[in-house]
Amino acid sequence: MGIVVPLDEGTRKPASLASLARLTREPMDRVNALILSRVGSDVTLIADVAHYLIDSGGKRLRPMLTIAAAAMCGYEGDGHVKFAASVEFMHTATLLHDDVVDESELRRGKPAARMVWGNQATVLVGDFLLGQAFTTLVEVGSLDALDVLANAAAVIAEGEVMQLTVAKDTATTEDEYLRVIQAKTATLFSAAAEVGPIIAGHDRSTRAAFRSYGMNFGLAFQLIDDVLDYAGNSGDLGKQIGDDFREGKITLPVVLAYRRGSDSDRAFWRRTLENGAIDDGDLQRAIELMRRHRALDDTVERARHFGSVARDALAPFPDSAHKSALIEAVDFCIDRVN
Amino acid sequence: MGIVVPLDEGTRKPASLASLARLTREPMDRVNALILSRVGSDVTLIADVAHYLIDSGGKRLRPMLTIAAAAMCGYEGDGHVKFAASVEFMHTATLLHDDVVDESELRRGKPAARMVWGNQATVLVGDFLLGQAFTTLVEVGSLDALDVLANAAAVIAEGEVMQLTVAKDTATTEDEYLRVIQAKTATLFSAAAEVGPIIAGHDRSTRAAFRSYGMNFGLAFQLIDDVLDYAGNSGDLGKQIGDDFREGKITLPVVLAYRRGSDSDRAFWRRTLENGAIDDGDLQRAIELMRRHRALDDTVERARHFGSVARDALAPFPDSAHKSALIEAVDFCIDRVN
Repeated sequence: MGIVVPLDEGTRKPASLASLARLTREPMDRVNALILSRVGSDVTLIADVAHYLIDSGGKRLRPMLTIAAAAMCGYEGDGHVKFAASVEFMHTATLLHDDVVDESELRRGKPAARMVWGNQATVLVGDFLLGQAFTTLVEVGSLDALDVLANAAAVIAEGEVMQLTVAKDTATTEDEYLRVIQAKTATLFSAAAEVGPIIAGHDRSTRAAFRSYGMNFGLAFQLIDDVLDYAGNSGDLGKQIGDDFREGKITLPVVLAYRRGSDSDRAFWRRTLENGAIDDGDLQRAIELMRRHRALDDTVERARHFGSVARDALAPFPDSAHKSALIEAVDFCIDRVN
Repeated sequence: MGIVVPLDEGTRKPASLASLARLTREPMDRVNALILSRVGSDVTLIADVAHYLIDSGGKRLRPMLTIAAAAMCGYEGDGHVKFAASVEFMHTATLLHDDVVDESELRRGKPAARMVWGNQATVLVGDFLLGQAFTTLVEVGSLDALDVLANAAAVIAEGEVMQLTVAKDTATTEDEYLRVIQAKTATLFSAAAEVGPIIAGHDRSTRAAFRSYGMNFGLAFQLIDDVLDYAGNSGDLGKQIGDDFREGKITLPVVLAYRRGSDSDRAFWRRTLENGAIDDGDLQRAIELMRRHRALDDTVERARHFGSVARDALAPFPDSAHKSALIEAVDFCIDRVN
């Protein structure tokens, strides 16, 4: 089911997160310990829900960005551990609320928290984790970092609302869709990266570089996720192929296939995604239409574009192990389609 | 339907919020303008949902506490306006999420936002407003105030989750119930009051006094709300008598009536509140049981107790118009039952 995408450098071996994980292992151990200590609420239901998701084997990609960005900027203190934990709290809160809003049944290969504890507890534990994110941030005492992450929280919610409004509209343009994922996904990558130079005391131009790295990485990450929903294999994903299709989500592969398709293609997309009238064989037909119109390959190309911008954002800085690991993380996210 | 409760001072005329409103009018105009400017998202759905609730005539009691507390502490700057707006954002976010969690149909006499825009948008606009609360707070730059309000956000969510777990348990004790409302309602009153002395640069003991004032005021406020749900008149409330009963909410009048009742009374409470099997006449019977066991009167007495603690918390400070108005606000909240 994989699609054929040439690697950038021909014979380069597929990128991995191993370098990033190795370089950040020690502080990430402290991040994980801090996260666990902060979800140990007296209210057992909170601890149960929070642990369920936190223990479920997410990659911790966003907090690793914070740790590596701080290290690349020469930071030697302790504050990056709290920032990284806050970033993961915000991410986890978003996932909990997302599952409620999207009525998702699975998350990371397990029943979504809302299927186990219900929507009510899931919304509230998300709120609790947002509160913990800010409580933890305040302890470090950097108003600049607080500003970046508070703003991210508002923008992420805006992006989710935008997604609701485009959710069933097959005529969404590529630009509109990019605006949604920039807010919904890329803003947290951007904030996670930017707090590194902030805590290390760097200037505006360094902050802007890491912000740009994170933003473009996040866009590439989301676009590849969109492709994997039609072309991945479910073992890697913790979700099944076709989840986005069944939920009627408009993603870039759909936007491209719709705009490049015939009138009858467009009628198909409206029936399945706008009206939710999905029959046996429709997912297969959706994938065929995407292949015919190169919608998946070109979504990967778009992701490569953003990946290049992310790499160039870090290009001016001296070579270092952390810089290489941050760049390889972008390559890894794109190589997931192979 | 009113219940007879003697006024503290015999012939004292009922307290009102008029003094507090008059003393805080000018900064509150700026609070309201700031709130409106910050919910003007490019995403019209956000602006629509936020305006719907914000324009619906809430009393703005919590932000008035912040403004008056700052003024009573001699603060002469501008930061209290932003704090007050943040407090109202947090309150509004909580209401939106509450309505989703409680599946409420009415709020302030209008259909709840979730009935108009659905649960999804309501959850996300709540998230957006929480983000705006923190963005606005960060602009003032007081880490102490941020700490108080970030912590409040987490504690409020904890309280809501606790309430879920006691929601259908008629055997809830008074202490358990007080823990819930302390977290869910009183913590934001407490934080709203405490940021006044914080921004005015006062010491720990002044902060503790305002925190205690707000916490006990909040407890009294919630207990009177609980009574009004069985003994108020719906014109004052924007909700109908018996909403809590129909939703199976365990509140202090229920806790007292259940614990003081006979076996057959307890069977009645379990049938109606735990099992949700409510027939015609059951609300009337619930009110009769509460009256027989003095559950409403004694809930008002409990509220008076907390009101007294709130008043004493401010007692050591010099008399001033703001102090009188803050104390009259507590009296007003209790006099609502008359």
